[in-house]
Amino acid sequence: MSLLAVGSVALDSVETPFGRREEVLGGSGTYFSTSASFFGPVRLVAVVGEDFPEEHVAFLRARGVDLSGLSRVPGRTFRWTGRYEFDLNQAHTLDTQLNVFADFRPELPEPFRDSSHVFLGNIDPDLQRRVLDQVRTPRFVAADTMNFWIGAKRASLLEMLKRVDLLFVNDAEVRQLAGEHNVVRAAQAVLGFGPAAVVVKRGEYGALFFSGEEVFAASAYPLPELFDPTGAGDSFAGGFMGYLARAGSLDPAVMRRAIVVGGVLASYAVERFSLERLRSLTTDEIRSRYGEFRRLTHFEDLEVDILGGDGTRD
Amino acid sequence: MSLLAVGSVALDSVETPFGRREEVLGGSGTYFSTSASFFGPVRLVAVVGEDFPEEHVAFLRARGVDLSGLSRVPGRTFRWTGRYEFDLNQAHTLDTQLNVFADFRPELPEPFRDSSHVFLGNIDPDLQRRVLDQVRTPRFVAADTMNFWIGAKRASLLEMLKRVDLLFVNDAEVRQLAGEHNVVRAAQAVLGFGPAAVVVKRGEYGALFFSGEEVFAASAYPLPELFDPTGAGDSFAGGFMGYLARAGSLDPAVMRRAIVVGGVLASYAVERFSLERLRSLTTDEIRSRYGEFRRLTHFEDLEVDILGGDGTRD
Repeated sequence: MSLLAVGSVALDSVETPFGRREEVLGGSGTYFSTSASFFGPVRLVAVVGEDFPEEHVAFLRARGVDLSGLSRVPGRTFRWTGRYEFDLNQAHTLDTQLNVFADFRPELPEPFRDSSHVFLGNIDPDLQRRVLDQVRTPRFVAADTMNFWIGAKRASLLEMLKRVDLLFVNDAEVRQLAGEHNVVRAAQAVLGFGPAAVVVKRGEYGALFFSGEEVFAASAYPLPELFDPTGAGDSFAGGFMGYLARAGSLDPAVMRRAIVVGGVLASYAVERFSLERLRSLTTDEIRSRYGEFRRLTHFEDLEVDILGGDGTRD
Repeated sequence: MSLLAVGSVALDSVETPFGRREEVLGGSGTYFSTSASFFGPVRLVAVVGEDFPEEHVAFLRARGVDLSGLSRVPGRTFRWTGRYEFDLNQAHTLDTQLNVFADFRPELPEPFRDSSHVFLGNIDPDLQRRVLDQVRTPRFVAADTMNFWIGAKRASLLEMLKRVDLLFVNDAEVRQLAGEHNVVRAAQAVLGFGPAAVVVKRGEYGALFFSGEEVFAASAYPLPELFDPTGAGDSFAGGFMGYLARAGSLDPAVMRRAIVVGGVLASYAVERFSLERLRSLTTDEIRSRYGEFRRLTHFEDLEVDILGGDGTRD
């Protein structure tokens, strides 16, 4: 199995009630491939400018990310500036400078074209399709998107959806995409657009997975310390896809584990700013928190005689 | 075991995007005791006016609710009028007429004073304490409250909390009560006020249970049809306490099952207006949805060799 990701590599400036960071490593491709790298190598297609610090390149390479698809072109790297209030579920974008990302035309190195698993990060659906055109026979394709593309590029997005196996969206996006407020019905409607599965990300509340008749509700890990939600969704997708590529199966039980692994990576990512927590993360910690997720959510069958209202409780 | 509940019995007028109902049966005591009645008899202490329809009394009696603590006094029954938008998590109160509820001074009939399990519905904390003064040696006391009492009667509420085993609150309330935005830290702070356990209700996202080091995250059931969230919290508490009183244990595994049972009752309650769905609910349906909650949330252990990044995924 081989995992390909396309997305942004950015320099983020982030302010939360707990502090601020200037021009730190960010971007969907970065969070995704770092999170996925705990399960095996990742092939990244992205673009940076001349100003992109070499230390970040070295970090990704050391994580086992194949950077032969990372273009360094004249100009400045994509920059995002955002702020979070105490309600960390909601990012407030203060400034977006696309810079070299504005002209990003993903080109896959020849060895990337045989990738079995593909993650299309949140970019223009035209570009997502362009990436798919270059992959020969992908076994599993997942895509992310956002409100902007749902509004501005709906036709292209719907074409893209016909070619993906799974879509990652948040509550608001699945409602917007389906034109339906109820999340269950909205997800079912999106399944009708093409993907065999939809993951609805709900921030601190976890995620819902829909595929055919299958529904899986994954709780988020209740964190007493949550510093910076930037990259949570891409870390989730990275853990999910990294695990899935490594597991080499699409069985329902494997998909469930993949979602929990995604939650594990997202829960660690938000504990510190930028990639700080993921840099020090160990496989033992991933395994440990996965176990905590099980203890957090599991419960036993109901007793046989507990119901019936025979009125003889005393 | 014997279960006592104090709360409101009301006539609700409710409007949601899916329809409206005028002066239908409502109130925290009503939803609670109906939900709890699936597990055994319930003793209800409440007040209604002369205008309260006899058919509602007959319904509660038929459900096994002991109404010897239901006072019928001169005046009109408590009325609440509310509206929900598409975001059904948020009730908009249009009108509250306390009527006879304004002078409610709960008096327990002598046979109620030996109750082992007590639920203090969302009423003035002075009255919640007055109820507790009348119960001789309760084994397990749970209380509900709301933003109004947290603001207006904080000192009395804190006194009450010293005497309860479990507090039901929603996200916003636990934050307000603790003066802390992070829900995990807020719940831990509330545990410091007295209760051995806190259940944080999160509407369509489920509930979090905190007790000592124990944390349990229960998902809500993703409903494609959700008509009227009125009474969801009290139905949750009713299922929880009814099950707990019947189970006769406070083991952690029993508490987890109680929370899921609460979620089952709440999920049915919101499927129709007022008590409509609970009226037709069967024990088989409760058992069936409990099983669906398990299928919805359970997942297997991680494979032993899935992590390690040995780079040999292909």
